[in-house]
Amino acid sequence: MKKIMVIGAGRSSASLIRYLLEQSERENWKVVVADYDLSLAEEKTNKHPNSIAIQFDAQDVPTCDKYIKQMDAVVSLLPPSLHYLAALSAVKFGKHFLTASYVSKEIGELGKEALSKNVLLLNELGLDPGIDHMSAMQIIEKLKAEGAEIKAFKSYCGGLVAPEYDDNPWNYKFTWNPRNVVLAGQGTAQYRKDGKIRYLPYHRLFSELETFHFEGLGDFEGYANRNSLSYIDIYGLSDIPTMIRGTLRRSGYARSWNTFVQLGMTDDGFRIAHSADWTYREFTDSFLPENPALSTEQKMAAFLNVAENAEIIDKLKWLGIFESQKIGLANASPAQVLQKILEEKWQLKQEDKDMIVMQHLFDYQKDGKKYRLTSSLVVKGDSVQETAMAKTVGLPLGIGAKLLLKDQISLRGLQLPTVREIYEPILAELKSMGIEFTETTELI
Amino acid sequence: MKKIMVIGAGRSSASLIRYLLEQSERENWKVVVADYDLSLAEEKTNKHPNSIAIQFDAQDVPTCDKYIKQMDAVVSLLPPSLHYLAALSAVKFGKHFLTASYVSKEIGELGKEALSKNVLLLNELGLDPGIDHMSAMQIIEKLKAEGAEIKAFKSYCGGLVAPEYDDNPWNYKFTWNPRNVVLAGQGTAQYRKDGKIRYLPYHRLFSELETFHFEGLGDFEGYANRNSLSYIDIYGLSDIPTMIRGTLRRSGYARSWNTFVQLGMTDDGFRIAHSADWTYREFTDSFLPENPALSTEQKMAAFLNVAENAEIIDKLKWLGIFESQKIGLANASPAQVLQKILEEKWQLKQEDKDMIVMQHLFDYQKDGKKYRLTSSLVVKGDSVQETAMAKTVGLPLGIGAKLLLKDQISLRGLQLPTVREIYEPILAELKSMGIEFTETTELI
Repeated sequence: MKKIMVIGAGRSSASLIRYLLEQSERENWKVVVADYDLSLAEEKTNKHPNSIAIQFDAQDVPTCDKYIKQMDAVVSLLPPSLHYLAALSAVKFGKHFLTASYVSKEIGELGKEALSKNVLLLNELGLDPGIDHMSAMQIIEKLKAEGAEIKAFKSYCGGLVAPEYDDNPWNYKFTWNPRNVVLAGQGTAQYRKDGKIRYLPYHRLFSELETFHFEGLGDFEGYANRNSLSYIDIYGLSDIPTMIRGTLRRSGYARSWNTFVQLGMTDDGFRIAHSADWTYREFTDSFLPENPALSTEQKMAAFLNVAENAEIIDKLKWLGIFESQKIGLANASPAQVLQKILEEKWQLKQEDKDMIVMQHLFDYQKDGKKYRLTSSLVVKGDSVQETAMAKTVGLPLGIGAKLLLKDQISLRGLQLPTVREIYEPILAELKSMGIEFTETTELI
Repeated sequence: MKKIMVIGAGRSSASLIRYLLEQSERENWKVVVADYDLSLAEEKTNKHPNSIAIQFDAQDVPTCDKYIKQMDAVVSLLPPSLHYLAALSAVKFGKHFLTASYVSKEIGELGKEALSKNVLLLNELGLDPGIDHMSAMQIIEKLKAEGAEIKAFKSYCGGLVAPEYDDNPWNYKFTWNPRNVVLAGQGTAQYRKDGKIRYLPYHRLFSELETFHFEGLGDFEGYANRNSLSYIDIYGLSDIPTMIRGTLRRSGYARSWNTFVQLGMTDDGFRIAHSADWTYREFTDSFLPENPALSTEQKMAAFLNVAENAEIIDKLKWLGIFESQKIGLANASPAQVLQKILEEKWQLKQEDKDMIVMQHLFDYQKDGKKYRLTSSLVVKGDSVQETAMAKTVGLPLGIGAKLLLKDQISLRGLQLPTVREIYEPILAELKSMGIEFTETTELI
């Protein structure tokens, strides 16, 4: 009887655990679900006969060793900074280890030992990174096989509220880690365009947008992610003139969000001494150029150079940033205060469903003609548990783990799912579950 | 025979060591000058009979202990991060310890032991911090004694090239640490204005300027320093409506400097992979919005929304940022590349002299009338060694050390020079050396 362990039973684990339990019935596996909070593990396993829910401290080496040495494979959904000790145990005892996280420096250093122990250390097998890598590589290898010369690759992804539940003026709700949304893009975006490396600092990021169209959903806008350059070699596209990855939002979002960036309200680098006692209004006011003759709303309109009844002012008002409510968070950074304000308005309601949108645009030349291939993915959540995010992050991991337990992947050592042996069967099974890209090609 | 040790014999130590050697002749002291680079210590002591030059590793505890236990007082001009072990030795053996640096957390924690050992641990006794604290406190205590109510305090300081040697279009040369100049202002400026705390992010810092006039020198512009709020309590001004500290430059500098900020060229947070082989022109181009129809200079003019022959374009051209010269620095951050380019143009020539300008503006009410007190300091360098910076950083420390060795300061424990017992004699002696504020008061 094979044993597989899932570490981390939070929001993103529902689809993964459900999938593994389904497989366990057919394959006669034991699925161990481990979390620091036992009740989360118990809730997800729901007394399934093939399951064991355990309390687990991933920062305790003896605990990691004790459980992991009994497994055949381990899937970690821990926050990225907490994978290492579990990965170390897995490699030490010769167990496969899978995550949806970027390869950290210390995980990378385990690659050699993983290879010598004949196990797979598979990273970036979620949505973004994960499904993006797999779907992109499938197209890239197909185009290369056809003799096409790829001139540009743009890849954008976003987690949003599904349009049926999109009932706020920002057309956005938090469907994932709110802190990451507030801090998104800080630093300098790096990408390649028309053969040149380009740098774009944070304070201009949300005003340099591209438009992406999804059939049946309309237009979205995309802003560049922090580092697109590192993907050029991963995808084997070292000579590509244009390569840019980014984040998708509903049209109009970035211009409004840019208000907070321009004012400095997303700074996480200092603390506001009296933040608990300040009101939302005082917080907002402290970032606006002072003018004692104007109200805070009027100062905002002046700062944005719009009329007081402009749509963007209404969107800001709707968030509550001009209200006299106390912040109630002690010694908080501006980013933390902003996150608190946004969480009150942007949280998903019980009945709300989320949506994942991803689009790859490839411009290429073949036989003297120029083409654009557009590959789009839209996934909507099924329920509170089986969100689009939980499905697209968890199912690739689940399928990958299944293939390993059934000895259908022979690859070993440190890997990304950019290898055909991995991406082909996973994409095929995702397609059978309705997680499927729509592809169109046009002459340009 | 009393012994005093100076740790650090670099650029800023000349005036301090010269002063202590002069005093040593009158007081019969021994002056030990210690540096990791013995030749620097020997150059500064110049075989003066009361001097000893030693090679010294301030990061080695036995070395610190061995020398410091023989001293009566220690003055450290080390970089801020390197004071700690020397301070620890000094406190352990009951020796006075003086620096021009901000109080770090770990230095602050030595305060209690310093008090119990009956020694003074005196920080922030240079120019800025240092002379600014002392001169401000002298005025604040005088105004308070007169029953004045202080409504606003603005304090600005800058290190510049003296006007007689100001021969470049930026009216600026590096007279101090170039890296600090390139990174200046990153984060969010925090100050109080008209009774309210205000925050100003980096990307707007260099466009929100105030003008300061110096008799005989003309106008300067000032931008806010990162944190002015922490000084409100230090100066005993908890109810003051307006408190802002900042940096002075010649008028026109900030607008031009802002070009680099807006483009993102001051980012120190990532490395440019092929920086060594890039040219200055390619570096500049990579930050500009692309337009294949335009030259790099034309793109810059378009970005700045100015004509191609505008003065700001000439200033940028003068720096060499459009040249085809190779950068030659491997794996450098944008800030490091920019620093390299600037150092070629902004370095002081052998004959150049520097200048320190500092101005305090106090608005206050007394007997129903409103006044503005302006207190200005201008110090010019005397020679390559005795720069304005070396004098204004080193002489307060030298005078402070002398007063301690002559038992003319009774204060003990962790202190700043905001205490009258310290600032009064030091300011008086600085005045006798020509380092003197000019004060004017006008009705407003």
